[in-house]
Amino acid sequence: MLSNSRAVEIEWGACDPGGIVFNPRYFEFFDWSTALLFQRALGMSKLEMCRTFDSVGIPLVDTRARFLRSSRVGDIVQITSTVTAFRRSSFDVRHELTGDGLLAVEGFETRVWVGRDPQHPDRLKSKPIPAAVIDRFTAAASES
Amino acid sequence: MLSNSRAVEIEWGACDPGGIVFNPRYFEFFDWSTALLFQRALGMSKLEMCRTFDSVGIPLVDTRARFLRSSRVGDIVQITSTVTAFRRSSFDVRHELTGDGLLAVEGFETRVWVGRDPQHPDRLKSKPIPAAVIDRFTAAASES
Amino acid sequence: MLSNSRAVEIEWGACDPGGIVFNPRYFEFFDWSTALLFQRALGMSKLEMCRTFDSVGIPLVDTRARFLRSSRVGDIVQITSTVTAFRRSSFDVRHELTGDGLLAVEGFETRVWVGRDPQHPDRLKSKPIPAAVIDRFTAAASES
Amino acid sequence: MLSNSRAVEIEWGACDPGGIVFNPRYFEFFDWSTALLFQRALGMSKLEMCRTFDSVGIPLVDTRARFLRSSRVGDIVQITSTVTAFRRSSFDVRHELTGDGLLAVEGFETRVWVGRDPQHPDRLKSKPIPAAVIDRFTAAASES
Repeated sequence: MLSNSRAVEIEWGACDPGGIVFNPRYFEFFDWSTALLFQRALGMSKLEMCRTFDSVGIPLVDTRARFLRSSRVGDIVQITSTVTAFRRSSFDVRHELTGDGLLAVEGFETRVWVGRDPQHPDRLKSKPIPAAVIDRFTAAASES
Repeated sequence: MLSNSRAVEIEWGACDPGGIVFNPRYFEFFDWSTALLFQRALGMSKLEMCRTFDSVGIPLVDTRARFLRSSRVGDIVQITSTVTAFRRSSFDVRHELTGDGLLAVEGFETRVWVGRDPQHPDRLKSKPIPAAVIDRFTAAASES
Repeated sequence: MLSNSRAVEIEWGACDPGGIVFNPRYFEFFDWSTALLFQRALGMSKLEMCRTFDSVGIPLVDTRARFLRSSRVGDIVQITSTVTAFRRSSFDVRHELTGDGLLAVEGFETRVWVGRDPQHPDRLKSKPIPAAVIDRFTAAASES
Repeated sequence: MLSNSRAVEIEWGACDPGGIVFNPRYFEFFDWSTALLFQRALGMSKLEMCRTFDSVGIPLVDTRARFLRSSRVGDIVQITSTVTAFRRSSFDVRHELTGDGLLAVEGFETRVWVGRDPQHPDRLKSKPIPAAVIDRFTAAASES
């Protein structure tokens, strides 16, 4: 399956009075890493993806992270993200965040493909993941 | 075991273009909920706790959250936090976030009691949780 | 003119490695303080306000803050917010943030009343502030 | 005077329910832009700068921003940062944020060079900006 890597620099404002990254920031990193993974697979931005596939987004339903090593201001960390499973309307993503080549944080997400509920446009409703989306992950992987 | 509840209002800036809370914000809520739980148990602020017990903080080593219902701008949610287990130098916290009386997010944390490493003051090192800290959770629970 | 006050507790994650509030957090505080001021004046939430008056929000066009004293984890600060001027489609808000009774941060905002552009629904466009909105600020002030 | 430019991608979580960047995020961008400007001038990280010059940081005392055009998820904006004045212990920074070549946000900061107060190590105190720091800005500019 296709994976995507990116570098993130740890900013002053991402760190807490203990001098290490404030843990919710890792979930910000992972959230955008998933968006970039889809962007790379589909060749379009998250916003275009939402428009093209009549989706409102891919909200989290379950997430877990293991923190093995702390990161500090100015560190450059590397995040590698992969979809580890596609199901009917949900899928799993795994993020590996490394610093100096060592695994620092491991993140796991389960997300749902979501659109507006036709009956209640104010509410969100899970929808089947379009086959075209899943195909792009396989195709993109075999191309790379 | 002692638990602590607090209300949190969902602010505009906590929500994303989908109109629902941006998921890392929940980890901010939980992080401070744990701090308030310790504050209530020990009768002192997180900062005083760090000073009193020569600690640098109680960083996360593992966390998980299940998102069952989304929350939106202006919602008032209720967060109830409990230590579910104390071990030698680590402990578990469970957070229950409800909206309109319904469980919306369930959070689980494993945290470590951490101080400066005497050999390398720049580095952090896990330390045994002081018995006085654990006692306060039991005492505070039986008082309440 | 009506003003609104609220207390904000400085959380661990709002502070940086220097141990003081990371400055963008003050703008988060002020943003929501303005929302609460409108909520108090109009007797409805920001979301209801947007629906009632066919608005998309009240984005900032200009803001300034003076930082006089720093705040730290666990501090309880007080924020008092007032509209200091209403113009055709823009208005000014002043925020006074105090700690221990001393002025710590002074914030100034100029915001615009904004709706969707009828010609280009993807774009935002300033609109005249409804007289009903301005009236509520004066009425609410004379009631309080 | 030396200036520094960098590209920032607008992430999903940086945007609010109105679909545009939540304004405090711009102050996060500017804060780190100033750090990178100093890093480029001094050839060392912010943390090394703090250690080398016995400083605790360069907190804001005054900041202003003008918001001319909004940015959205996936936009790549460009931030150019320059010190516009050095005084004894304070200095001014100007940030220009552009999107598609058009000025979108203009930011102004006044910051102070700060260390621990020798009398009260818990408190911060402004200190003269080291001549070596100012020299690097001029030298770096003439090299570039």
